[in-house]
Amino acid sequence: MPEFAKHLELIGMDNLPEIKEGDDLTVLFLNALEEKDMGLEDGDAIVFTSKIVSKSEGRVVDLLEVEVGEVAEQMAKDTDKDPRIAQLVLNEAKEVVKKMQNHIIVETKHGFVCANAGVDESNVEQGKAVLLPKDPQRSAYLLKQGLERRSGVEISVLLADSFGRAFRDGVTGTCMGVSGIPAILDRRGEEDRFGKVAKVTKEAIADEICAAANLIMGEFKEGIPVVLVRGLKLKRCESDIKEVLFSREEDLFR
Amino acid sequence: MPEFAKHLELIGMDNLPEIKEGDDLTVLFLNALEEKDMGLEDGDAIVFTSKIVSKSEGRVVDLLEVEVGEVAEQMAKDTDKDPRIAQLVLNEAKEVVKKMQNHIIVETKHGFVCANAGVDESNVEQGKAVLLPKDPQRSAYLLKQGLERRSGVEISVLLADSFGRAFRDGVTGTCMGVSGIPAILDRRGEEDRFGKVAKVTKEAIADEICAAANLIMGEFKEGIPVVLVRGLKLKRCESDIKEVLFSREEDLFR
Repeated sequence: MPEFAKHLELIGMDNLPEIKEGDDLTVLFLNALEEKDMGLEDGDAIVFTSKIVSKSEGRVVDLLEVEVGEVAEQMAKDTDKDPRIAQLVLNEAKEVVKKMQNHIIVETKHGFVCANAGVDESNVEQGKAVLLPKDPQRSAYLLKQGLERRSGVEISVLLADSFGRAFRDGVTGTCMGVSGIPAILDRRGEEDRFGKVAKVTKEAIADEICAAANLIMGEFKEGIPVVLVRGLKLKRCESDIKEVLFSREEDLFR
Repeated sequence: MPEFAKHLELIGMDNLPEIKEGDDLTVLFLNALEEKDMGLEDGDAIVFTSKIVSKSEGRVVDLLEVEVGEVAEQMAKDTDKDPRIAQLVLNEAKEVVKKMQNHIIVETKHGFVCANAGVDESNVEQGKAVLLPKDPQRSAYLLKQGLERRSGVEISVLLADSFGRAFRDGVTGTCMGVSGIPAILDRRGEEDRFGKVAKVTKEAIADEICAAANLIMGEFKEGIPVVLVRGLKLKRCESDIKEVLFSREEDLFR
């Protein structure tokens, strides 16, 4: 039986600067920790908003430079959106899943089903939009490697974004990339407290960690782009957020 | 601008007894806290698994006593399920949303879209199944009232269950009932750090709190049916989990 956490702590980092292309997030985060007289500990999970990772990777687009094609023009009309945003959404999409008044739900090239392909105009300068990191799984891996090298402790890194859901209103923190811990805890075969063997249960822990972190990150003025989660007792491993994504054939709701 | 949490603590309660019908969860929880030399503080959120609330309310069914009708018999064949479980699912359902090999997704009478109407055979004696609380929103309210009366502080209560999702594999902690804080944070009209006004963002904080708590509750032998969340800075109000549930017309994926 695995060991379980009984006590978790989430600490919001409110002392990072505005992130620009080329910034090294591992250095900025470790400096911010030091400023708070804190250090990393073995087993810590560090949740970065995908937005600051995007900014550091230069995934910010000037809307004036977007050339709008015919398909995007029509989609913008259908959905009441800025045609340049519609074009960016199409660029990022593998497939449009649903298109309705005010909503473009797509599968992104990474395989995430989400609104507007994650293209986001909030918390960036007027006239600009932020795209999701090109390869958030790889970004999580590189951040983990960088933080472990600099700190000498074994940690995990998650990239979080706020996604809407089917059936339920409102966004929740959702994982885009994870390194150092499992993306999903496959607990099939384990027994419950009455000796019954589980048949189907897998727990999407990477998403739960990102949802928890989102309670601190919030959506607007909070200025907390990184949350340190301390107390998880998860086995160390390399995983991939793709393990959480249903293929089209498995997905009952597409 | 609202005040935001920068530091959250989650404390798992591992010292409650096995819950039976008629048990007063407010007393058992407060005793368990006292045993840990802890007390409640203003603003604490207490997350109960819906399962122990169901058990205390007598929502445990002996499968030997389930009379199986024709519709359930057929559904059991179609989905490879125990016909008695299929009958319980139908009893709890308002509508069957999807039915496939091994999956019955329904809308429950409460309005939750979930697998098997929340009917669950884990962590209960062999030959028995647990149903969701009859009115989890009311259960949350009554637990909140009881805890506030006994403790003299202002708290909130959430009921959590593990639900699957569309598009993504694995279950996450999801809210069934919430009292004392908002179910959803409607942040439309707020400005981001660049002065842009949000158009659509609502954050499903009750679900995020339950997802966070689920990291500690887990699914099987953990025996942690209650999690205390300390550090949230949310305005006090009465809300209703129904605010989070899309109506059939609003839901893009039904």
